[in-house]
Amino acid sequence: MDVRTRDAKPVIALAMGDPAGISAELTAKAVALDEVRATARLVVVGDRRVFDEGAQIARVETEMTTVAPDATIVPDGDEPLFIDFGKLDPASISRGVAVRRGGEFALENYGYALALARDGRADAVCFTPFNKKAMRLARPSYDDEIAFSAEVVGLEGAASEFNILDKLWNARVTSHISLAEVPARLTKERISRALRLTGACMRSAGFPRPRIAVAGLNPHAGDGGNFGREEIEVIAPVVEAGKRDGICVEGPFPADTVFLRAKSGAFDAVLTMYHDQGQIAMKLLGFDRGVTLLGGFPFPICTPAHGTAYDIAGRGIASVGATRAALLLAADMAMRQRRSSAALRGGARM
Amino acid sequence: MDVRTRDAKPVIALAMGDPAGISAELTAKAVALDEVRATARLVVVGDRRVFDEGAQIARVETEMTTVAPDATIVPDGDEPLFIDFGKLDPASISRGVAVRRGGEFALENYGYALALARDGRADAVCFTPFNKKAMRLARPSYDDEIAFSAEVVGLEGAASEFNILDKLWNARVTSHISLAEVPARLTKERISRALRLTGACMRSAGFPRPRIAVAGLNPHAGDGGNFGREEIEVIAPVVEAGKRDGICVEGPFPADTVFLRAKSGAFDAVLTMYHDQGQIAMKLLGFDRGVTLLGGFPFPICTPAHGTAYDIAGRGIASVGATRAALLLAADMAMRQRRSSAALRGGARM
Repeated sequence: MDVRTRDAKPVIALAMGDPAGISAELTAKAVALDEVRATARLVVVGDRRVFDEGAQIARVETEMTTVAPDATIVPDGDEPLFIDFGKLDPASISRGVAVRRGGEFALENYGYALALARDGRADAVCFTPFNKKAMRLARPSYDDEIAFSAEVVGLEGAASEFNILDKLWNARVTSHISLAEVPARLTKERISRALRLTGACMRSAGFPRPRIAVAGLNPHAGDGGNFGREEIEVIAPVVEAGKRDGICVEGPFPADTVFLRAKSGAFDAVLTMYHDQGQIAMKLLGFDRGVTLLGGFPFPICTPAHGTAYDIAGRGIASVGATRAALLLAADMAMRQRRSSAALRGGARM
Repeated sequence: MDVRTRDAKPVIALAMGDPAGISAELTAKAVALDEVRATARLVVVGDRRVFDEGAQIARVETEMTTVAPDATIVPDGDEPLFIDFGKLDPASISRGVAVRRGGEFALENYGYALALARDGRADAVCFTPFNKKAMRLARPSYDDEIAFSAEVVGLEGAASEFNILDKLWNARVTSHISLAEVPARLTKERISRALRLTGACMRSAGFPRPRIAVAGLNPHAGDGGNFGREEIEVIAPVVEAGKRDGICVEGPFPADTVFLRAKSGAFDAVLTMYHDQGQIAMKLLGFDRGVTLLGGFPFPICTPAHGTAYDIAGRGIASVGATRAALLLAADMAMRQRRSSAALRGGARM
C-alpha cells in the first residue's frame, strides 16, 4: 500500500551518511530519541554493523527490526525498521578519512531512501551528513544532492536548497557558481522562480503567508543605481510582480542589514542572490544548528546543516540537535502534505 | 608649535557631523566623558549653538573654551576647545531631515578638522556621523569620506576603510562598486596593497604582528577551482608572497566561515574581497557598536560605525559607545605615532 494514505505516523527513510565521521553516531542518537520515534516511523537505510558501532559510540540502545533490502515492503506498525545492505564492515573504515567506499555507502543508502519515497513507500527522506570528497571519489560526476536526487526521482521542475535556522529560512537564486557568473545568471525568470518556490515550500511547511525579504545584489542594494542597476532593472520588477500575485514579499534590501531585520522577526525568509550572501549570515547566526531542506521535490528531503565533523568522529560528543530538527521538519511537512492530498481527494481518509 | 612633538595628551580635532540626527548629542556626550577628556585633548569644530542643543538633549554639561576659527592656534593646556564657525542656527534644522545646509555644516567642520591635523595642529581627527544624502546635496561630487579626505590632505598613497569591532578588524579590497565589477578589479597588485596597508595600520594601532585572514571570492573559496579560479590564480599567490615577506597571513578561506574563526580568536583581521562579504558579517557581529578607521593617512581618522539615526534624534537615548571607542582608538594610535616619530628622531622628546 501507499504509505502516504495511512492514518498513522509519517514514514521517514533515513539514509546513513559518510561512515568516517559522525553520521552513524547521529543516526543512532536520532533513532533513540523518544520524540522522534513518537512523531515518525523511521526506516533506516545502511549497514547494521556501522549503525551498531554508532550506537556504541553514542551510548544508546534501540530496538529495531532489521530486514534485508529484498524484503523491504514497509510493513504496518510503528517500530523502527532497519534496511541492511550489509556491504560495509566498519572495521574497514578509518575515522576522519574520506574514501571511495564511504562515498559509495552514502550514495547507495541515499539513492535507496529516495526510491522508497519516490515509490510511495516513505513520506519523506532524511540523511545524516555526507562528505563531498568521498562522494566525488565514489562518483566523479557527483555535483550536489539536488542534482543526484533529481536524477533518482526523475524531477523535471525547479528544485532548490533551503537553509532553515529555528524559524528563519534562507533561499538563494544562484548557488555553486563563481561570483563572476552571478550577475548574468540573475534573470527575472530565475529570481521569480526562486521566489515562488520559496513561497510554495514555506506554505507546505506551515507558513500560511510567509513574509519574504529579497536581498539586493550590490553594496547598499545599488545605492539608487550608483553601484549597479540590477536592483532597479531586474530584482525590483520581480518583487513588484510577486506582490501583485499576492506573495508577501519586500525588497530589494541591502544584504548587510536584511538579516538583522529578519533575525529581529521582520521576515520569515530571506531570498539571497548568491551563495555567500546568505551563508555568511546564516552561519554567523548559528546555522550549523539548522536544517537544510531540498525543496521542489514531491516529498520533503531534510538533512542537518553541519558536516561530517571528522575532527570529533568516534568521541560520542556530536550534538544530535540539527538531525533531530531535520527529522521533525520532514515529519511535519509530510503530515501536512498528506492532509492536503487527502483534502484534494475529498478528505476521505484524514 | 607642532602639537605632535608635545609631551602632553594627543590633540583630537572632533568635527560635528550632520545636525539633523544624533551627531550633536553624541559630540556633547563624548566631550563630557571623563575617560575621553583624560586621554585626549579635544578640539571640537562646529557651531556652539548646535553643540549646546546637543548637550541639552544629552543632559550633560561641559566646560569648554570657545574661540573663533581665525584664532585657532591650539594653545597649550588640556581643557577642551571649541572652534565656533557660528554659521548654523539649530532652529533652522528640522530633526530627521537630510538637507543641504546640514551637509555643508558637516563638510566644513570635517574639512577644517582635517586641515588642523594636516598642518600639525592636531594629532588625529574624529567626526560624529554624516548623512550621505545631505553630503551629496551640499556637494554633488561627494563620493565618500576617503576621497574627500585625500583631497583635503593631499594624499597620494593608498587609503582604505577599516571596520573595527572590539579587537576584530575588517578591511576590503574593493568597496562601493557593483558586484559585477568586483572580479576584474581583484588584481594581485590591489589585493597585495590592501594586505600591506592592513598590516601597517594594525601595527600602528598596537598589533605587533597582526594575524590576517584573507577571504576567497567564490563559494567555498572556489572549491579547488570548481567554482572559479581567482583563489588559485590571484589570491593565493598574494598570500604566499605576503608570508614570504613576513606578514602573518593565511588564506584564502571560504567567506562563510572565516568570520566564525576570527570571532573565536583565530585571527585579528579579515581582508575581504568586496563590500558585503565583510559588512554582512560585521553588522551581524554588532559592528554598529564599532569604529570605522580611515587608514593610509598621515594621521588617524576615526568615526563611529553607525549612522545619523534620524529615527531617535532629539530623544537623548543615543549610545555614545561607538563614538567613545572612536576617540580612544584615535588617541591611542596618535600616541603610538608620536612615540615612533620620536624614536625616529632619536627619542629626544619621549
